[in-house]
Amino acid sequence: MTVPTVVTLDIGGTTIKGALVGADGQELKRLDRDTGASSGESEVVARVRAVARELADAGTVGVGLSVPGIVDTAAGVARHAVNLGFRDTPLAALVAEEVGVPVVLEQDCRAAAVAESEIGLGRDARDLMVVVLGTGVAAGLIVDGRPLAGADGSAGELGHLPVYPDGEHCACGQRGCLEVYASASGIARRYAAAGGTRAGATAADVASSLDSDVVAARVWREATEALGLALATATLLLDPALIVLAGGLTGAGDTLLRPVRSELQGALAWRQAPPVANSPLGGDAGRLGAAILAWRAAGYEDVVLRDAV
Amino acid sequence: MTVPTVVTLDIGGTTIKGALVGADGQELKRLDRDTGASSGESEVVARVRAVARELADAGTVGVGLSVPGIVDTAAGVARHAVNLGFRDTPLAALVAEEVGVPVVLEQDCRAAAVAESEIGLGRDARDLMVVVLGTGVAAGLIVDGRPLAGADGSAGELGHLPVYPDGEHCACGQRGCLEVYASASGIARRYAAAGGTRAGATAADVASSLDSDVVAARVWREATEALGLALATATLLLDPALIVLAGGLTGAGDTLLRPVRSELQGALAWRQAPPVANSPLGGDAGRLGAAILAWRAAGYEDVVLRDAV
Repeated sequence: MTVPTVVTLDIGGTTIKGALVGADGQELKRLDRDTGASSGESEVVARVRAVARELADAGTVGVGLSVPGIVDTAAGVARHAVNLGFRDTPLAALVAEEVGVPVVLEQDCRAAAVAESEIGLGRDARDLMVVVLGTGVAAGLIVDGRPLAGADGSAGELGHLPVYPDGEHCACGQRGCLEVYASASGIARRYAAAGGTRAGATAADVASSLDSDVVAARVWREATEALGLALATATLLLDPALIVLAGGLTGAGDTLLRPVRSELQGALAWRQAPPVANSPLGGDAGRLGAAILAWRAAGYEDVVLRDAV
Repeated sequence: MTVPTVVTLDIGGTTIKGALVGADGQELKRLDRDTGASSGESEVVARVRAVARELADAGTVGVGLSVPGIVDTAAGVARHAVNLGFRDTPLAALVAEEVGVPVVLEQDCRAAAVAESEIGLGRDARDLMVVVLGTGVAAGLIVDGRPLAGADGSAGELGHLPVYPDGEHCACGQRGCLEVYASASGIARRYAAAGGTRAGATAADVASSLDSDVVAARVWREATEALGLALATATLLLDPALIVLAGGLTGAGDTLLRPVRSELQGALAWRQAPPVANSPLGGDAGRLGAAILAWRAAGYEDVVLRDAV
């Protein structure tokens, strides 16, 4: 008897993280491959197709793809992803051609938010926000149980909220963007620019030396202040039941959570802040979310991968 | 033959604006009554019930209520409205008891957004934001065709976005809230505080004297700058197809629209701003939205009141 499976691919700037997943959430096969991004769009697409084909077995009923950038989920098109060369790339159709089953495409933060709402901390929440704090900062929003894509598929650009209108310049051309202060790259850059003595310090290094390094302590405080402000803004607009932090910066654990919770509540004078927690899904959230969406696209509405966590 | 009708009530701080509406959108009867807010919750509820009963006819199939504050639409409960004394008031059930038909309750900005999306400028948009610029500032959000309420029914609090984190104090206890700068009351207050020479000037007075009054010009510019920043933030998070301005301040017409459009685009370095327009529905948006929701609650999904505008 053939057991139904889905293929899930989380396509990042450097690695395609793929898996073949059973209905119990178990990973039956795992395949990570270099994205080949330096060779451009057609090479990336060829590798995505190849990984999907290699992973699929006789029982595969669907494929889920998680990609960065601007994604039109309904059309299955990767509208724009600078680091992968995607530009109106009909990725879902191209992979479906290869594998012969329904393929669903979702933006990576929204896929992570789907995973969080189905099998992570958001199981009881209809409205939640997942904030991915990595090289950049972006959010995946779940509203009334569904991912919020927006009119152009670009909702959730939390990293470019102008938290300080007259603040430091951002590479995007705006000023005072959250990402300038609270991304891993921003923290490392600001530590070095402020004369931090630890050469080549990463954001994790900064987080781990708050007690002994006044520059680190200040840069970290400014990061969590900016993040608290942005989360207050998002709370006022969206009223989430829960905010989940994800991405590399959450490696700092309570060193991140404690000041962010405090700054968020401090910025909300007249309403209680929603709870803020670190994701238990780690770097697997995008791939798990794409797997959940693949099951749904294949008509298996009840598969929620609860055993995957 | 009995013609089906709905009763719609827009319950404001001072006036209950009621109407009996036919399926073609025509108002068959109109009834405005003082809210009686100074006498407290029970008097307001009694008046709402009385107006609903007076308006209902033999054909009435549903009632729609639009109320300010925090509203739990699913439960039909007005959670909190300071000016009306509502505190977990089960208004839908209380009116249903009086009229004997299904009653739907919606927050006023969300009701206005429903009207805008069904019969106003948002007919072609699945995602839009209606910003009501009156004594205060608040937004009604439509996401993927549905009003966004949030976990506690308090989504859309645009007026308290901290646009300037170190800005002027707001009555809410926060600093730099949009409402401080861009509400009608905020504009009038800031004009007076800045030494504006026109005693008792309203926001409309300020808007109409930009060419001759440097204080008015500065206060108005600061209002539209703050609004542009807040709309940029909302655009980055929600990616609406359209932003509709409503409320008293839109009486200024292009004097409002032109700088707001320019400030919004100026704050968005790397993406195009959504179009911004003034609502054609004026003060009727809340009542029209409640009528649309009443038709839906009564099972008349197809009635969209297109003839009402």
